[in-house]
Amino acid sequence: MKLGLDVGGTKTDAVAVDADGTIAGRIRIPTGWGADAVITTILDAITALRQEASFEESAIESVGVGIPGLVDAHAGRVLHAVNLGVESLDLVDAARRVIDVPFAVENDVKAAALGAGALRGDARSMAYLNLGTGVAAGIVVDGKLWRGSRGIAGEVGHISVDPNGRVCGCGQRGCVETFCGGGAVARAWGRPGALPILDIFDAAEQGDVEAVALRQGIARGAAAAVRILVLSADVETVVFGGGLTSLGDRLRDDIVAELRQEAETSAFMRSLRLDERIELLPAGSPAAALGAALVGAAHREQGAMING
Amino acid sequence: MKLGLDVGGTKTDAVAVDADGTIAGRIRIPTGWGADAVITTILDAITALRQEASFEESAIESVGVGIPGLVDAHAGRVLHAVNLGVESLDLVDAARRVIDVPFAVENDVKAAALGAGALRGDARSMAYLNLGTGVAAGIVVDGKLWRGSRGIAGEVGHISVDPNGRVCGCGQRGCVETFCGGGAVARAWGRPGALPILDIFDAAEQGDVEAVALRQGIARGAAAAVRILVLSADVETVVFGGGLTSLGDRLRDDIVAELRQEAETSAFMRSLRLDERIELLPAGSPAAALGAALVGAAHREQGAMING
Repeated sequence: MKLGLDVGGTKTDAVAVDADGTIAGRIRIPTGWGADAVITTILDAITALRQEASFEESAIESVGVGIPGLVDAHAGRVLHAVNLGVESLDLVDAARRVIDVPFAVENDVKAAALGAGALRGDARSMAYLNLGTGVAAGIVVDGKLWRGSRGIAGEVGHISVDPNGRVCGCGQRGCVETFCGGGAVARAWGRPGALPILDIFDAAEQGDVEAVALRQGIARGAAAAVRILVLSADVETVVFGGGLTSLGDRLRDDIVAELRQEAETSAFMRSLRLDERIELLPAGSPAAALGAALVGAAHREQGAMING
Repeated sequence: MKLGLDVGGTKTDAVAVDADGTIAGRIRIPTGWGADAVITTILDAITALRQEASFEESAIESVGVGIPGLVDAHAGRVLHAVNLGVESLDLVDAARRVIDVPFAVENDVKAAALGAGALRGDARSMAYLNLGTGVAAGIVVDGKLWRGSRGIAGEVGHISVDPNGRVCGCGQRGCVETFCGGGAVARAWGRPGALPILDIFDAAEQGDVEAVALRQGIARGAAAAVRILVLSADVETVVFGGGLTSLGDRLRDDIVAELRQEAETSAFMRSLRLDERIELLPAGSPAAALGAALVGAAHREQGAMING
């Protein structure tokens, strides 16, 4: 079994993938806070997966972990995973002290990009654009992650598209993330509620002026990210994932309308047909956990090549 | 000899590269207007190169042509080369009717990107950003052009970075090209003069308010393009070329200052040290013609592999 774990800020989604590439089991458990609790969560998820899909520890071929933070994949280390309360964690070392199987770790968006490509059956040229608390993309070409020279390829959330826009958490002004990042938009909204983005969509439909502007901004930011990804890296398809995609067609229709409206004035943009080249992951998609399993399996194969 | 021709709007720059990769000869002639005249220019340039470097037609191994337009490299066809008065031209077919050697054609910016990589001796991860009449980049990874899925990778000139900016020739508003494209900036300046960008730089130093704003815009647009190329495709280095780089250090200092100022507010941007990762091609660099020669040689090798 190849295991894949997507360790998120609130829950951890985990799958066991069998030799045919089929998901043989899937579990979800709450994620603990802080470095020790994250390791415990990972080990608990593996135990839960074993129970769910009935396999022994000896049947585990590899474990891949996707995690929201700066990842040094080579060292198996995670840095600045602020949503998990982790400043620095030697994740692979710590996990292997308990279960001695091949572990690998990857940034969660990059892992999800691989998984999204596998699920759609075509990963020749695509970006996975995550609209979650923050905004970032993973670029997949010929089935492989495009890392770039320093591992920051796809960091489109921090490209400024409006010099007069709101100040971003990164310190710049008008970043893509200030428009369509769940955290930034919720802060700009500022009203109480467990699901602020959903509240904004609902309030916008009732004509709340502030909500209309924020909702429009979400579509604008997402459309800007699509244009940036296509005009710079020239990906064929942009697949949206992350928390905001739970809005489904309401979000999709907004982004499509925005892409069409912006293309109206430009024959060049019309020729790119961007509105036909976006996809949303369905709610509950296992893309991120599946992608983590692919990361783990690929890491194990590379290790096997190097060691033997 | 491997020949490389950079067919520009006013002049054609051509080099002959010998078996050692050394430039054995270089000539420059005016470019003719319209499809027939462009073919004549290409043939004349080859004749002039033969005289300059003293070699027979039979010594020509390959000819590569870089040209400003939409290029179908496979068909050897050029479309919409508006600065040359060419709407559509089967360049390779037409040229081979006169000289039967392997011809290849490529978009001039993409060819120049390859040449810039060869000249700097490191083409592992770079973008060549052309600030000419228009703005576009060529991305080179591991010594090869990164084409993307539809051949538009690097078209950063038409990414909007200001929703309230000037209308671009492409129909959008606030595109990178409206800030730092020679054509757009000269139109915004609107005053007579053969070298409007030079005039703007000079007038800005004398305190002309309009010139100061346009000059600042050039640096802003160029800096935005650098950030886009690094944060999306994650290239290690951005090499500037094109007509505006004849301004040399005056342009470079402006862009460096802009990158530093924008990084002041953002620890994330500071960590990228973009100001240390830009380079300007020196005046008179043969990068574009040399790159065209590389395109021709690579095309010939591929043909040899396919044909056996």
